[in-house]
Amino acid sequence: MQNTVLLEKLQEIAGNTRVSTSTANIYCYSCDASQIRGMPDIVIRPDTTEQVSKIVKLAYENDIPVTPRGAGTGLAGGAVPVEGGIVLDMSSMNRILELDLDNLQVVVEPGLIQEKLNARLEPYGFFFPPDPGSSAMCTLGGLIANNGSGMRSVKYGTTRNYVLALEVVLADGTVINTGSKTMKSVAGYSLTDLFVGSEGTLGIITKAILKVRALPGERSVMLASFENPELAGKAVVKVLSSGIIPSACEILDSNIIQAINAYDPGVGLPQAGAILLFEVDGTENSVNEGIRMIEDACRSLAIDIRTAANKEEREEIWAARRLVGAAVSRLDPLRTRVYVGEDIGVPIKEIPRMLHKVREISEEFCLPIMTYGHIGDGNLHTGMCIDMLEDKDWEKLNLAADKIHRTAIAMGGTVTAEHGIGGARAEYLELELGKALDVMIIIKNALDPKGIMNPGKMGV
Amino acid sequence: MQNTVLLEKLQEIAGNTRVSTSTANIYCYSCDASQIRGMPDIVIRPDTTEQVSKIVKLAYENDIPVTPRGAGTGLAGGAVPVEGGIVLDMSSMNRILELDLDNLQVVVEPGLIQEKLNARLEPYGFFFPPDPGSSAMCTLGGLIANNGSGMRSVKYGTTRNYVLALEVVLADGTVINTGSKTMKSVAGYSLTDLFVGSEGTLGIITKAILKVRALPGERSVMLASFENPELAGKAVVKVLSSGIIPSACEILDSNIIQAINAYDPGVGLPQAGAILLFEVDGTENSVNEGIRMIEDACRSLAIDIRTAANKEEREEIWAARRLVGAAVSRLDPLRTRVYVGEDIGVPIKEIPRMLHKVREISEEFCLPIMTYGHIGDGNLHTGMCIDMLEDKDWEKLNLAADKIHRTAIAMGGTVTAEHGIGGARAEYLELELGKALDVMIIIKNALDPKGIMNPGKMGV
Repeated sequence: MQNTVLLEKLQEIAGNTRVSTSTANIYCYSCDASQIRGMPDIVIRPDTTEQVSKIVKLAYENDIPVTPRGAGTGLAGGAVPVEGGIVLDMSSMNRILELDLDNLQVVVEPGLIQEKLNARLEPYGFFFPPDPGSSAMCTLGGLIANNGSGMRSVKYGTTRNYVLALEVVLADGTVINTGSKTMKSVAGYSLTDLFVGSEGTLGIITKAILKVRALPGERSVMLASFENPELAGKAVVKVLSSGIIPSACEILDSNIIQAINAYDPGVGLPQAGAILLFEVDGTENSVNEGIRMIEDACRSLAIDIRTAANKEEREEIWAARRLVGAAVSRLDPLRTRVYVGEDIGVPIKEIPRMLHKVREISEEFCLPIMTYGHIGDGNLHTGMCIDMLEDKDWEKLNLAADKIHRTAIAMGGTVTAEHGIGGARAEYLELELGKALDVMIIIKNALDPKGIMNPGKMGV
Repeated sequence: MQNTVLLEKLQEIAGNTRVSTSTANIYCYSCDASQIRGMPDIVIRPDTTEQVSKIVKLAYENDIPVTPRGAGTGLAGGAVPVEGGIVLDMSSMNRILELDLDNLQVVVEPGLIQEKLNARLEPYGFFFPPDPGSSAMCTLGGLIANNGSGMRSVKYGTTRNYVLALEVVLADGTVINTGSKTMKSVAGYSLTDLFVGSEGTLGIITKAILKVRALPGERSVMLASFENPELAGKAVVKVLSSGIIPSACEILDSNIIQAINAYDPGVGLPQAGAILLFEVDGTENSVNEGIRMIEDACRSLAIDIRTAANKEEREEIWAARRLVGAAVSRLDPLRTRVYVGEDIGVPIKEIPRMLHKVREISEEFCLPIMTYGHIGDGNLHTGMCIDMLEDKDWEKLNLAADKIHRTAIAMGGTVTAEHGIGGARAEYLELELGKALDVMIIIKNALDPKGIMNPGKMGV
């Protein structure tokens, strides 16, 4: 089909104002928060499932790649149209279709911003737990497609645990529904789970039914410092084995402690080998009890324990964790934080060894690496900053990231615990997944035989 | 290949004593706990993944159906070889390969009995939460293949939530590994979730890495009676919205209350319109607090609340729930409980309406139906007893079950919340899943092009 004819057809489907080929738009949609780049040919902002279905059908008939996009906050290039074609900007489909709180669920469109859902739920005493750093901007569709999570997944799990049902547009435009409003079902393969985390390579999410949880009434935090990361790792296992499930369980390594203290001396973190930051939420009684139990579990291993006695102290401690991003990014004004090799996961007990390895890699490549992360899940973020104009810096960074990835895999870990594969990490999938990658490819080919759904992603 | 040659090859792979074609064995393996029947040609009890792989490869080359079997406790015919061929009895592969408690996980073979794993974990203060009624007999492989759950899934989720990784033998004998020992990963499609609950139609599970949880120190129970099921349903929503997540939340309808009281008058359940039974587990404080909060939530709606003051009273209340099965089965010595139409799920707030409908269906067909279930998940078990020698009884039962299934689907529910589709409920999948069933079939055909993996199940 000729380009002009195609464009006309797309405009007919979505309306003129929702279809663009302007250079400015094309450029805006050529990137996300990663280093991956790719220019789309056409950007469309559909408003209904029907439009999405018709657009995808047309793309299917004409072998045109279709890349869905939420807010573009992804750190792995998932929303970047690396093979051109159509970008479907889902941000207009942002309605809350139903607040079905008697069933402890909501029905939403994929373009809804995560925080907006929570703002709507809050007066009713509910929330949607997944909490990526990008909550204020990211869309629920993006969260679902990437199985996003964050700090509180140690207690609340990942997005997957909250998706009851999906409406999905398949490669040929067919609309299917997976799951239902029923909390528990074993009728058929769990297609919902297949689409969650498939990064738009199998279909486009146009509606979701999400479970919500009751908002905890109270929360408290506690900070424990350790001589070295090994002792911190032991403390985490001890805490989790005690039956208390903290709502956050974060680790800061000595580099990041230094960076935070340098960034804001008022925070005054103990200059320890590692710091653990625990949060407990629930009722007042259970929070107090939880914090006491965590203190007990840490006492023989920590050199210092600081528990927030009141809201102000809690804010102070929590501020330290919130400063991490800024502290990493602004450590050196000449350097920029680059999100490469930044999202490894390892089995919990390997965390201390991984922290040690990261430090060795940092020294080997003379590249400061500040490590922090969700130790309760084994998820570590390695913050690396380089002078982006220096080729040598890029080379060092890529070599260090490669070593970090391979080390994590060798420990039974993953190259990405929550940020996604996208176009950034696909090269490691064979090493990490082995023959399971072949099964992914078989499924991809069966559901998207022409390979038009977000091509160039996830190694499929 | 000639049958004798094939048999010799299988004996070569697994050893003579592990392969049988004796009539006695064939007969034993022709059923599970459902009404589905089918004779295998050969029964093999493999001991290693390598044997399973070789057997399946040989079956693949010769187009022979392969049906994996755990303990045969399934209620939907999942383990019944309805198209003949080979039954793989996995019960010999029953080892605990690793107690990796520092990583809060265990590595097991599929033939291990669920209760044996928990017995092994208990001294360390851990447990594997899924708790089907068949815990004492069922295998972990069966639990995983069916995504089994039970009474405590309202708090602890289903088996799916505890499977970190699987080793699976595919239709052509290829062995793959899905997932890893890392708690959180988004590297690739969640194949683990695809195989969990696929009832052996996509591959045979030969190893699993399972998450475990810390054993709660305390538990307590509470019983609330209501004038009618609607009020009980409202109380459940109120409780779950309050932030307390009970470790069990069961409903008994008036028929089942009557049946329990008739079976053991000592139990003395209040003859109410519905009874809710709550269990809370955790620390002593949190349990007491949880029970108090549940009492508060129920107070304005219930006609009577009875909380266990001590262990004896707790056992008394819990005994009532445990009696359900026996009470249903022995209500009339001439009738046998038949597991047909017994496992529906509906959205939580539809439970009262569903209970009402079940009662109408019971009256319409003059068939006593006793309903109980996991109301916190929307899962209802409808206990029906018939004279199995009476064709008319069977007819009534099937008509009633059909109506129950269709009513559940019409409410946005499911024909099976935890027992599985197997050969018993496949006819409803199209109605329940719509076009998603086509996607299941596409995946099935892609991964098992010859259709040898547990054929005749799940509608694929």
